[in-house]
Amino acid sequence: MPQNSYLVGLIGSGIGPSLSPALHEREADRQGLRYLYRLIDIDRLGVGPEAVGDLVRAARDLGFDGLNITHPCKQLVIEHLDELAPQAAALGAVNTVVFDGGRAIGHNTDVTGFAASFARGLPDVSLERVVQLGAGGAGAAVAHAVLTLGAGHVTVVDAMPDRAADLAAGLNRHFGEGRAAAATPDALGVLLGRADGVVHATPTGMAAHPGLPFAAELLHPGLWVAEVVYRPLETELLRSARAMGCATLDGGGMAVFQAVDAFRLFTGREPDSGRMLADIAELAGAGAGALG
Amino acid sequence: MPQNSYLVGLIGSGIGPSLSPALHEREADRQGLRYLYRLIDIDRLGVGPEAVGDLVRAARDLGFDGLNITHPCKQLVIEHLDELAPQAAALGAVNTVVFDGGRAIGHNTDVTGFAASFARGLPDVSLERVVQLGAGGAGAAVAHAVLTLGAGHVTVVDAMPDRAADLAAGLNRHFGEGRAAAATPDALGVLLGRADGVVHATPTGMAAHPGLPFAAELLHPGLWVAEVVYRPLETELLRSARAMGCATLDGGGMAVFQAVDAFRLFTGREPDSGRMLADIAELAGAGAGALG
Repeated sequence: MPQNSYLVGLIGSGIGPSLSPALHEREADRQGLRYLYRLIDIDRLGVGPEAVGDLVRAARDLGFDGLNITHPCKQLVIEHLDELAPQAAALGAVNTVVFDGGRAIGHNTDVTGFAASFARGLPDVSLERVVQLGAGGAGAAVAHAVLTLGAGHVTVVDAMPDRAADLAAGLNRHFGEGRAAAATPDALGVLLGRADGVVHATPTGMAAHPGLPFAAELLHPGLWVAEVVYRPLETELLRSARAMGCATLDGGGMAVFQAVDAFRLFTGREPDSGRMLADIAELAGAGAGALG
Repeated sequence: MPQNSYLVGLIGSGIGPSLSPALHEREADRQGLRYLYRLIDIDRLGVGPEAVGDLVRAARDLGFDGLNITHPCKQLVIEHLDELAPQAAALGAVNTVVFDGGRAIGHNTDVTGFAASFARGLPDVSLERVVQLGAGGAGAAVAHAVLTLGAGHVTVVDAMPDRAADLAAGLNRHFGEGRAAAATPDALGVLLGRADGVVHATPTGMAAHPGLPFAAELLHPGLWVAEVVYRPLETELLRSARAMGCATLDGGGMAVFQAVDAFRLFTGREPDSGRMLADIAELAGAGAGALG
């Protein structure tokens, strides 16, 4: 009998407002699958990010087919997996775990998701000099995506200098020397002044972390601004950037395309990305409060 | 937003052939609920029955709404729960756990399930002298059910004399002295010779434990035979009993009515027992191999 029931979940912190359950379940319903997507919030459980290993093993034992992993567990989860897809290994970050006969295999659909969204939403912008904020799990993925899309040079900015330096070194190893460098936030004024665009990949702007990741005065009309946060779709950063006349890309497309790839990994079936893009517009447009 | 998605499961040993997932999911589908019922088999996991506590806590943390518990965990699970429904406390056996705001509450729907099935299937038989085989979790439940239905006297037979004596003592405390006694299997010849009926509540006859629980020569046409095993619906015991001319009751009705009560506890919604009885006839009739 072919499998037609799927149990998946999301492990992370502050994930109550996530649109992933609705995105996955709506598409599954259209495909006639029994599909349940559960939120496993470490804050609600009162455990730290290091509990991700126990949670992954428990999910495997209780019959989950797979998991999405988000902040702050995307890197911590790696040591608890049996195998990594090559892309996830290169990134050092996992956002999708698939259980296969008792084995837990790590993937990363953030990079393909961001690349697909960027190519759709900002098809004509210059990628010569890119500044990226955030060198965590999502940051590593989108830096890989931006360089894969052909960026000339990416400067990775993070408040934790070692984390930025490690990511830049990894990018140079993977994409060739001279493609990436690291910097600290105090250099943002100079960096953004001469950049073509900025990718924002920290949690700032999420419902649980409101605010701007840097002073709005550093924006200028020649800069494109790509956001990773998708909840809310219009972050304070995007609002400021649009007011300044910047070309912008919200996080909704990345959220949809990473979900498209995760759905395919969980089920082996091809989701309809067009229908899922319509879903996120409707879900995010319906207002934040009702969807938690 | 009212809850309309439910994640439940069954913890036990050798549960691959269980019909509970299909029984619950079919009824949920008719009610328009998103409902997933997962099998959590301790044999497949390679853990002992004492792992039930960890599995229950893991299920709570991962967003399960409730669990069914079966052999050999129905008694072991009790110490891991936060609260027991009065019936479950009196029985000393739990087959249903409901999670309510982080608390795990134990119930027992075996007793109500067996009573409902018996009243439907053997409405006119004498209950003066009843012999019951098996003093485990299900055995405790059906002994309570038989005495609740008005049995004059129940002799509990188990290969573990202490277990039978403990159950008989508990029944006498609960239903009044002189209603129950304990015996060992070597007394079955004498006991069955003068009994009105026998309730079989050991795993013998299940797919994983084939065979007869006692020699077929001990059956006689004046005896009714009620079976707790429901997979297969026709056990070797029932086949022998029918050949002897005994009135019989298979385990299907108990399986349905315990599921009816569990479904109600998990969802707060009233299931349609008539549709579920039709389901089990179809599912069990479809043949064992295809349903695991």
